[in-house]
Amino acid sequence: MGCDAFKRVKLIYLAILLLFGMGSVLYYSYKGASDFPEPEGHHDERKRDHDEPVEYHDDSGVFNEQNIPNHASRNTQCSCLKTSKSYNLEDFVNAAELSEVRRRREVEHQKHLIREQSPLQQLLVARPNSPLMYPIQGVRAAPLQETLIPGLSVHAHNREHYQVTLSVTNGVLAIKNSDSDGKVEGQKEKVLSLSASRLDTLNGLLKSLTYTSSLYRIKGGDLVHVTFERYSATFPIVIQQTPIPNLSDPGQDINSQVTITTKTFLRYAQLNRLIESIRAFYKDIKIIVADDSFKPQPIKGSNIEQYIMPPAKGWFAGRNLVVSQVSTKYLLWVDDDFLFTESTKIEKLVEVMEAMPELDVVGGSVAGNFFNFKLVYEEGEDGGCLSRRMGNYQSIPGFPDCHLTGGVVNFFLARTDSVRRVGFDPRLQRVAHTEFFVDGLGKLLVASCSIISVGHQPKGQATGEEKKVLDQYWTFRIEKQEEVKMKMALYYFKNRLKCFSP
Amino acid sequence: MGCDAFKRVKLIYLAILLLFGMGSVLYYSYKGASDFPEPEGHHDERKRDHDEPVEYHDDSGVFNEQNIPNHASRNTQCSCLKTSKSYNLEDFVNAAELSEVRRRREVEHQKHLIREQSPLQQLLVARPNSPLMYPIQGVRAAPLQETLIPGLSVHAHNREHYQVTLSVTNGVLAIKNSDSDGKVEGQKEKVLSLSASRLDTLNGLLKSLTYTSSLYRIKGGDLVHVTFERYSATFPIVIQQTPIPNLSDPGQDINSQVTITTKTFLRYAQLNRLIESIRAFYKDIKIIVADDSFKPQPIKGSNIEQYIMPPAKGWFAGRNLVVSQVSTKYLLWVDDDFLFTESTKIEKLVEVMEAMPELDVVGGSVAGNFFNFKLVYEEGEDGGCLSRRMGNYQSIPGFPDCHLTGGVVNFFLARTDSVRRVGFDPRLQRVAHTEFFVDGLGKLLVASCSIISVGHQPKGQATGEEKKVLDQYWTFRIEKQEEVKMKMALYYFKNRLKCFSP
Repeated sequence: MGCDAFKRVKLIYLAILLLFGMGSVLYYSYKGASDFPEPEGHHDERKRDHDEPVEYHDDSGVFNEQNIPNHASRNTQCSCLKTSKSYNLEDFVNAAELSEVRRRREVEHQKHLIREQSPLQQLLVARPNSPLMYPIQGVRAAPLQETLIPGLSVHAHNREHYQVTLSVTNGVLAIKNSDSDGKVEGQKEKVLSLSASRLDTLNGLLKSLTYTSSLYRIKGGDLVHVTFERYSATFPIVIQQTPIPNLSDPGQDINSQVTITTKTFLRYAQLNRLIESIRAFYKDIKIIVADDSFKPQPIKGSNIEQYIMPPAKGWFAGRNLVVSQVSTKYLLWVDDDFLFTESTKIEKLVEVMEAMPELDVVGGSVAGNFFNFKLVYEEGEDGGCLSRRMGNYQSIPGFPDCHLTGGVVNFFLARTDSVRRVGFDPRLQRVAHTEFFVDGLGKLLVASCSIISVGHQPKGQATGEEKKVLDQYWTFRIEKQEEVKMKMALYYFKNRLKCFSP
Repeated sequence: MGCDAFKRVKLIYLAILLLFGMGSVLYYSYKGASDFPEPEGHHDERKRDHDEPVEYHDDSGVFNEQNIPNHASRNTQCSCLKTSKSYNLEDFVNAAELSEVRRRREVEHQKHLIREQSPLQQLLVARPNSPLMYPIQGVRAAPLQETLIPGLSVHAHNREHYQVTLSVTNGVLAIKNSDSDGKVEGQKEKVLSLSASRLDTLNGLLKSLTYTSSLYRIKGGDLVHVTFERYSATFPIVIQQTPIPNLSDPGQDINSQVTITTKTFLRYAQLNRLIESIRAFYKDIKIIVADDSFKPQPIKGSNIEQYIMPPAKGWFAGRNLVVSQVSTKYLLWVDDDFLFTESTKIEKLVEVMEAMPELDVVGGSVAGNFFNFKLVYEEGEDGGCLSRRMGNYQSIPGFPDCHLTGGVVNFFLARTDSVRRVGFDPRLQRVAHTEFFVDGLGKLLVASCSIISVGHQPKGQATGEEKKVLDQYWTFRIEKQEEVKMKMALYYFKNRLKCFSP
């Protein structure tokens, strides 16, 4: 398996360290703090320890546990709410399979960390009174491409001889212009050593220092260690295959910007009323419908796409299907029993999105109902803790009726590319909504605008055939115990949670 | 619009700077280089300029243009290949609309940059011989959450008075434990000033320095500027809403790991032969079929899901549909006229994926055909340059038959979540394949394994009804001029390319 297997092992090791106490960072930091060099001068470690108790005390003190930045919270134990509404998710996994399921979950989590972790997350500290000048951020290299490292030089005087050693892990170093009277050892190797009798010769060599990553990867990083006498520094290189943009042409009007998407199951009467109401306000906008009815009926109307799914395939499968068929920058999600009114102003939702490009989802209200919630997520060694709290984070400057939040109702405008990135899990067949925002936690920036609303068709007024259909429909909508169990088991494995407080 | 609008303006400004010459970085770097402080001591700027021509020369020299790291290449002009096969993409946009289309493209690109750019990409340099100790990487804060900043301290002596000033842009600073005899000004403001008569008092205050971002965002960053006398430093803080994992349970066997996906149009005879061949080797694996035939016929067989699309909806729309319905960690893509053989070993492809978690797509060969290609992409002010070159990057250690590359044939195993993140553009109706790997450039790590292959059903042997159907089928598969034009126009807008050399 060679060096790649070795790298994998190393990464798993790093992941385990990250999981158990940030040992590596603490060690590195403490070390970094305790043996940092003094101002120009030559007294040795022992001597310094006694001469400069204050400094020594300072530095060792800087790195006690509570000073590690909060991404280290990944490694602590998160605590679940002690309310009756807090589910312990292990209770929803079959007891007989639990240990095996837990094992598989941790294996997948380790692989997830290998995909996500990078040396660029490790805590690094610039040490004081060092003659080294170096780039601490902004050095980027394309995979396998030789790249100049800017900003590296030594600023020390009165030496008869100057020597600098550099080392990297995931690539090789080289000096492009070595035709000077300086000495270069280790060209195109992981460890490079430079020496010269004059400072400007040494810095001349450093000016043409290059890095070439040795593994083709889409994203990653490396750390460069530099040593000059008793001084040392470590700085990061971002390795990245530049991603190509994926822009969406908004065209000239709402029809080229937004597609209306919904899913239906049996309720054609409701769906047709919805479509009628849409056409009253948006006569040309495209409508995409996913249909998993037992006896699919063709939906009449212009610019409507109907997709027939296997019977009763399910709610999120249908949502994910329509999302996959959208070609506009935005999609508007509506349930099949909603009703467009004068207040259903899609343009307003687009306006908010365009004013704040970081936004991914903007919800409105359904017959006055907002259902805005925040998702509070803590990582933990043995799984994360998630709780849902009604409310918002803050309002959007310039849009007092719009607030940043964690999740919204079933009526929202969303960036098509953002929703695809998160997806609606097709395994959620009957009752599901919050699950989408949980899967999107840390990926979707969500807002809610109270003034944009859609109507809801009145319930319980159906008669005759329509009532029969609705009665059948509701037998599918009543959530059964095994469905709740399946959803909680998904939170346990997919989102690696140990508890959820809705 | 308040501070958010201001931030947006700033970001657009940053984006423009990034687009035109990295002006800001050059300026910052040059400044950083030219007025960096010396070792402990008190001679002033003028004096230094004359005393230390060597150092001065050094530092100004470090930052000439070609030393800016290569992400700055974003701002240069990329050049298209001068071959007959290189398309100038503007030629494929209607001349009358070109200026308006170009305008819309640049507006979308600016918004794309606002979503993607961050102060964490700017070049920062650690200056030599500074008494400041500070974290250069690894400080992470959750949005709106007060977070301790570790590793910050001053290491200077023999002052009667010590003062440090800190400033940030996107949040506020505070000292948690200010109950010492030091002086703190600007608690919970953007600029914080600390002073003390003793060094350990000052460093005691710095130990409890916290940062709180003032805007709720999913991802972002801030730069902390620290000043002590004539010494200064700048370091980054990563602001991130921790993303929740999205793990996939591999289950116990190939059936719980992989779903076979395909799309059919008219060719039921071919599809049925494919399914027969799959069942000869994988009798229980799930098969998902997207079908946009004019007269859909039910597909017989167990564990097969058929989705009926609007007639002739198209090739990539069908691919995107099946991808949206997969519930397994991996999906295997096959065309409807392929044929499974003894060498169609899905397990081998899974083995490679599991051995290298960074992988997103692993292709095989179709009847001995590989079609591996690399995509060479350069950014440019007026659009990027893309060319396709046959070949691979490097082999996968431990798997000599597998090579990392940029794109593969129509037979590949892929991570379901990765493919969803990129997607198959539903606008590509007839002939499309490379487009998926172009959209995935910088997002998908792709490999090809030569020993895993699938068969191809022989062409031109059909007779009678089947031949009639195939003749109709091929009238749709022959690419028309307007389809080529549409594809090139997509490259122009969506991927912001100016030229493409297939």
